[in-house]
Amino acid sequence: MNILLVYAQPEPSSLTQHLVREAEKFLLQHNHRVSHSDLYAMGWKSVMDEADFTQRKVSERLSFIHESENAFSTGTQAEDIHIEQQKLQAADALILLFPLWWFSMPAIMKGWIDRVWAYGLAYGYKNAGNRYRYGEGAFAGKRALLTVSIGGPSVDYGSRGINGKLDDLLFPITHGTLFYTGMEVLPTFAIYNSGKLNETMMKNVTENWQKRLYTLFSESPISFRLQNGGDYSDGHTLNPPIKTNATGLSIHHRD
Amino acid sequence: MNILLVYAQPEPSSLTQHLVREAEKFLLQHNHRVSHSDLYAMGWKSVMDEADFTQRKVSERLSFIHESENAFSTGTQAEDIHIEQQKLQAADALILLFPLWWFSMPAIMKGWIDRVWAYGLAYGYKNAGNRYRYGEGAFAGKRALLTVSIGGPSVDYGSRGINGKLDDLLFPITHGTLFYTGMEVLPTFAIYNSGKLNETMMKNVTENWQKRLYTLFSESPISFRLQNGGDYSDGHTLNPPIKTNATGLSIHHRD
Repeated sequence: MNILLVYAQPEPSSLTQHLVREAEKFLLQHNHRVSHSDLYAMGWKSVMDEADFTQRKVSERLSFIHESENAFSTGTQAEDIHIEQQKLQAADALILLFPLWWFSMPAIMKGWIDRVWAYGLAYGYKNAGNRYRYGEGAFAGKRALLTVSIGGPSVDYGSRGINGKLDDLLFPITHGTLFYTGMEVLPTFAIYNSGKLNETMMKNVTENWQKRLYTLFSESPISFRLQNGGDYSDGHTLNPPIKTNATGLSIHHRD
Repeated sequence: MNILLVYAQPEPSSLTQHLVREAEKFLLQHNHRVSHSDLYAMGWKSVMDEADFTQRKVSERLSFIHESENAFSTGTQAEDIHIEQQKLQAADALILLFPLWWFSMPAIMKGWIDRVWAYGLAYGYKNAGNRYRYGEGAFAGKRALLTVSIGGPSVDYGSRGINGKLDDLLFPITHGTLFYTGMEVLPTFAIYNSGKLNETMMKNVTENWQKRLYTLFSESPISFRLQNGGDYSDGHTLNPPIKTNATGLSIHHRD
């Protein structure tokens, strides 16, 4: 299989880059292919702007949606966007590795999403509005995984942790960005206390990471509900009586 | 009062920029002062990297936390960061205006947070680790408001909406980024169907926006729980029996 690693950490001795190197080694040993988007090393342009659309459809007014649609469908996107889309389309799995900054991804990776996730591809698939999303779309059949380095302790990210539950904090990414496009999203691989790992802990992290990589194509994805699977009959809201006594983002998981 | 508007939308005819112009006009009429961070117009550098720390404490290894701490405390941050911090420290209220991209802020604004929210200021306040956060910190006494343009319909963002509830999607920003620093965070001003507003709807939006601006310093903030207010006795988890039957991020609101 072909695995695309996208990462946002410039420091070679960081945990993130350690996990990238371990992934590369382990995946090649297991007869996979690996490609890389090392965003800092690439000097990835993180800001979506008019320069991304080399032949504007409407020059008087910049609509990101309409220009993204036009540029994607006519092959006139900025070259760096096109290259990333090709890498992604060739991949069977996408792994995003990043340190958690303000309970989300660093700007450089958000900008990878903002720019590469074009209209007609990641949203507005087949120019059919919202018809294909949440389980269906251009990236259906691919797997996705977040690998997140977190400075704080796990207790702060538990169900009753003060920061909010990690799965809820990452929902805009796991559900709203990855599953949205049709990907099967695996449970997040989180490493807590990332700045305080001693040699033994690092060894454990590396072993756990290898186990996750070993089951990359076999473990069960997060059980997000399909838009068109019957749970949202109107395409907008969860049907009663499903989870009518529950609150929170977890209502969008099947039991 | 002094209000800082930070916004991430380059198109002059966009809803975001319309709301900025209306805010400027309305706030000046009501004897406030207004300052601007027009991130696209400023060409804001969105990627936090080694160039942000002009005199490295440790040159062999880049630790963002340690270098941010050192640069902030020694006054050696990149000049653009310092300028934004000064604008923010002079402000009584911060309003972030942005289109919702992938259920979060555009990369350029995430990069404003990543870079301006320095160690010793927005986190690690007084170099006391996590002692002052969630309701206490350098920005206590300031108000904060998100003003978000959303392409989709409100039904998709309701309590049972397919995208997840808007308040939950924005929790990493409202709670994890703004309240974290001590700010009082007001309920989000969201405009749905932002690409489909006719003249009447736009007039309504403008009037509602003026109402929100009128009560900027009087309306009740979101009732997030203070870290040090007694609800998290260990500083990490919500005390039982508070909300033991509930799930989701809303457990971190007082009733």
